[in-house]
Order: sequence, then C-alpha cells, then structure tokens
Amino acid sequence: MKIQIIGFGVIGQGFSRVLLKKKDELEKRTGEDIRVVSITDISGTAYNDKGIDLEKALEIVKNSGKIIDYPEARKISGLEAIEEIEADFVLELTPSNIKTGEPGLSHMLAAMKAGKHLVTSNKAPLALKFKKLVETAEKNRVEFRYEATVGGAMPIINLARETLSADRILSIEGILNGTTNYILTRMTQEGAEFEHVLKEAQQLGYAETDPTYDIGGIDTASKLVILASALMGMNATYKDVKTRGITGITPEAIKLARESGYVIKLIGEVKNGILEVAPRLVNVSHPLNVGGALNVAMLTCDIAGEITVAGKGAGAIETNSAILSDIISITGRR
Amino acid sequence: MKIQIIGFGVIGQGFSRVLLKKKDELEKRTGEDIRVVSITDISGTAYNDKGIDLEKALEIVKNSGKIIDYPEARKISGLEAIEEIEADFVLELTPSNIKTGEPGLSHMLAAMKAGKHLVTSNKAPLALKFKKLVETAEKNRVEFRYEATVGGAMPIINLARETLSADRILSIEGILNGTTNYILTRMTQEGAEFEHVLKEAQQLGYAETDPTYDIGGIDTASKLVILASALMGMNATYKDVKTRGITGITPEAIKLARESGYVIKLIGEVKNGILEVAPRLVNVSHPLNVGGALNVAMLTCDIAGEITVAGKGAGAIETNSAILSDIISITGRR
Repeated sequence: MKIQIIGFGVIGQGFSRVLLKKKDELEKRTGEDIRVVSITDISGTAYNDKGIDLEKALEIVKNSGKIIDYPEARKISGLEAIEEIEADFVLELTPSNIKTGEPGLSHMLAAMKAGKHLVTSNKAPLALKFKKLVETAEKNRVEFRYEATVGGAMPIINLARETLSADRILSIEGILNGTTNYILTRMTQEGAEFEHVLKEAQQLGYAETDPTYDIGGIDTASKLVILASALMGMNATYKDVKTRGITGITPEAIKLARESGYVIKLIGEVKNGILEVAPRLVNVSHPLNVGGALNVAMLTCDIAGEITVAGKGAGAIETNSAILSDIISITGRR
Repeated sequence: MKIQIIGFGVIGQGFSRVLLKKKDELEKRTGEDIRVVSITDISGTAYNDKGIDLEKALEIVKNSGKIIDYPEARKISGLEAIEEIEADFVLELTPSNIKTGEPGLSHMLAAMKAGKHLVTSNKAPLALKFKKLVETAEKNRVEFRYEATVGGAMPIINLARETLSADRILSIEGILNGTTNYILTRMTQEGAEFEHVLKEAQQLGYAETDPTYDIGGIDTASKLVILASALMGMNATYKDVKTRGITGITPEAIKLARESGYVIKLIGEVKNGILEVAPRLVNVSHPLNVGGALNVAMLTCDIAGEITVAGKGAGAIETNSAILSDIISITGRR
C-alpha cells in the first residue's frame, strides 16, 4: 500500500508519528505492506518508492520547517506529485480554505482522476463541492473517505454508515466545534465574559488569532453540510446554513440557564431539509451536554432512535484515528 | 438469505415488524432476497422455505400467544429447527438465563456447528462462555455477531471494531443498564427514596418484578464481560466482576453529590485487567452523565483518546438496529 501525503502540518506529522508507532500492528491488521512514498509541503516533495524514512522527515521538518531538505526531494507541487508519483492512496491534509476550497479541491479531483483512493481531513472542499467530489470518485471507481473532516477523532460518518447500516438518518444535531465549546464551558464554570475567555483560549492555542471562523459558526456550518450531504443525501453548501455564532452570549444568560438546569451550547442541526447553526439551551443531563473542547453529535435514526457519539474534535494524534480507520476500511473493500 | 428466528418474544416480534417495514430497502442495500424461513417459540416452529408471512405470524402470536397456531408449523424445538431446517442465519433471541446460559447456549453452538451464521441479543451465554462461542464460530467458519447483547441500540462493539479499527481499546467504562439509570435519574430529579422509585419503575415496566438482576449490578457485570472479551481480548465470566449495586444509594448522597456538580451513576469499568461494577460520582458535564433509561459507554483508545457513545439500552424496535446491522455486516463479508 503506497501512500502519498499532501500537506505536512499538524495532522500529516501526526499521521507519520502514529504510523511509526503502529506500523507492524496495522500491517498485520490489513495484510498490506504500508509505505509513505511521498510527502509534499509548500517547499516541495520528498519521495521514495521504497518508503520515506518518516523519522528523518519529521526531524528535518522540525529543524528547517521544509520537506525539500529531505535527501530525496524535488521542487514539485502537490498536483505534480499526485500526477507523477505512483501510489494507491492520497492523504489530502492541507489547511481548509472555506472561500475557495483550494488547494485541497484541486488535489482531491486530481487524485481521483489519477485512480487513487482519497482520504482527507480537509473540510472546505467538501463543504463547497461535496456532490462533485462524490461523483468524481464514482466515475473513477476510487474510494473517497473523509471521517476526519468532522469531529476529529469522533467517528460520526463511519458510525452512521457502518454500524447503523440498517437505519435511515432522520436528523442530526451536535456540537461540531471544539473552540466554541471550550469558550462556553469556561464561561459557564467561571461566570466570565466572552471576550475574556476568548483571549485566554487564544493564548492557550484553542482559538485562532482571527477567531471569526469558529465563533461565528462557519466551521460548524461547514461540518454540518458534510454530515447532511454524507448521511442524508442533501445537496448543500455551507452558505445554505442559517448561521448564528456565540458572540452575543453573556454570562448572565448562561447563569439564568444554569439555574433552570440548562447550559448554552452552539448547536448545528439538520432536520426536515433545514440546516441551522445557533446557540441553544441543552439540559445538563442531555447527552449533548459535553464539556471542554469535546465534540458531540446526536443522530436520530428510524430504527435505533437517538444515538449520540462524543470525542475529541481535534488533535494531531487523535484525528489520525479517523484517517487510519478510513484507510483500513478501504483496504478491506479492495 | 434465509433466516431462522429462535425465540419470538419482544425482540423477535420487533425484528419481524422492522423487516416488514424495511424489507425492500434492506434487500436493495444487501443485494439479497431476505426471507424468514422459520420461527420457533416454546410451543413449536412455524416454517416455510419460501418465507413465512410475518404479518400473519405476528397476528397469530398476538391472538393465541403460540407460533404453533401458524398454518405451517410443527411441534419441534429450537434445536431441532436449527438442525432440520435449511438456513443461512440463525437469530438467537431467547431470554437470558445468567445461571446456565440455556437454552441460548445450546442453540448457538448447534447453529454454528450446522454452518449457520449467528446473530444474537441473548447475553447470558456470552457472559458465561464467550471463548467457547468464538472458537466454535472460527472452527466452523461462520460469523458470530452480538451487538444487541450490550446496550440495545447503542452501537458499541461494532463502533470499536469497525469505526475505531486502527485503535487499541485500553479501557471501557459505562452505564450499561437502563433500569438502574432510570431509577437513579428519578431519585436525582425528585429527591425520592430508592424503594419508592423502584416500585414506580416496576409499575411502568422499566423494572422486573424481581429486580435483583438489574439493581444488584449483575446485568451490568454481564455486559461488561462481553465488552472486555470482545474488545480487549479478556477471558472472564460475570463471576469475575467485583459487583456492587445501587440498593444502598440514599437521596441524601445524591443531593450531596449534586451540590458539588456531580451525579451518582452505576458504572461498569474494565481497566488494567480489573472488572468492576459500582455506583460512582460523575461530573454533570461529563459525557457519561446521560439521564433517563439511556445507556452510555466510553472507550479509551490509544490513538483516538476517549470516545463516548450513548443510545437506548433496550426496546423492541431499537434493539433490531443492532441485529440488522450485524446481518448486513456479515452479508458484506460473505
């Protein structure tokens, strides 16, 4: 099994670290020899058909920040690497750009057209062009898997498809953004103001310097669109989601809610064809009340009723649980 | 796909109702013609190689309580039906008997020896003889699936195996019994005494007339053993579980916990080779705090970290989500 990594940031490096640790176990599990044959970042592409030395690649990137400093490397882009280097799988792990979906979208389409299976953690292309991606995968008879795009380690897409395979999904609601959950949890625990907790979250690295994408609800809306498309066959983009963020939430509102046994959470919901992101009251004993930076989703199913799953919504190592389970699942289907 | 149903109580009848409703959808999904060729209860066995009329079977059992009143029926037992009637799948859905595991255990072994795939909701045989059952399945090259034995509709076993396939499970903790969760939730909400709420639960049908099995923690211990065996490769029976139930819990203890932001839940845990069931404090914002009769389980995984899943722990219809997903999964493997 030859794997190309496109995008060597937090997730790509985490993938390499997990693979270094679990290669034997995963090879036994899949019955395949697992090799990373190329790694591309903004500086260029490291490649080796016999398998890149991942320890060395991690060391080099840690020191210089550039994969081009790997002994066998060329100044070629992700698109060129996908077209020129032989491989079975492409892992598209570049950062999400919700405006254009690029460069991820082009990488994904190129990989599928080259007959390579695609596994990704990059949600923007899916939140913009889900249908086109699925159709391209079908046309080129490759597998397209994206568990890591929603909820990090939380297995929501494969949960619905594989372990609730007899059910139809009637509605979905959840906390799909760890940053806003972290902020609301801290506001609840400390009675602190939104601005104060946001600043703290930024210092701890839980929130970006420009937090609009998270606190404005756009990240939640993007993930909601992926779930609605993947699990309910909807055809939508994140712009179709009625979206309200958490900037208006006051400590007073949280306190009032708490006195009646509720917490305020930023909930994304798809139901009866309507996609909506907004702050909502959740009973403290309800499965959707999970604290900290956790993500959670509740599926309403026609047979099983309500099924809830929660897990870490991000994390360099944790997210690779989703990526690896996608790879293993494709291997089982080949 | 020819299916035999052994045990035609709540779950077996629920299976028939779900199949009547979703047959076309499931046949499209699996690419198989799905037929129930026999139904056995204590009175005998209805059979028809072309497929039993499930609507008629349900009607007859509703009226007389006996499947032997079906037009094509013989006075043969489950064991005889398994041996004599041709089928691909046996659904073992008889009631759990934690002392002997019978008659389920004999049905299961006979089905596998006859080369039939086995899907079950009957936990006692697994809590007593897990290893023997797995070995018998392997020896006879049949699939043995039992998602419905733990947590009803909550997809915990297939979640770990299929959607967390790259992970090793390091520990498991959860609320695995809906009756005790219902009782503790009501005690928390109303400040009521244990005995009072238990009586109410019995009147509502949430608790058995002899509630020892639930409130003493034995049911939780049985399910914990199945999870530990299936997901962590342990070799144990429910007698190896250190078990304490909820009879000692007072409204005062619950109130005291609540004042510090905690609830009391009956938790089953397997960790470092130790199996234990006991009442424990759970933070109100922790994913394990789910109310009502819900079940919940948290898996600690080596890559994904902590993943929690919650759902209805019982239910005539809901439990069949698990049974059907097991059937679909086996079909995909054949």
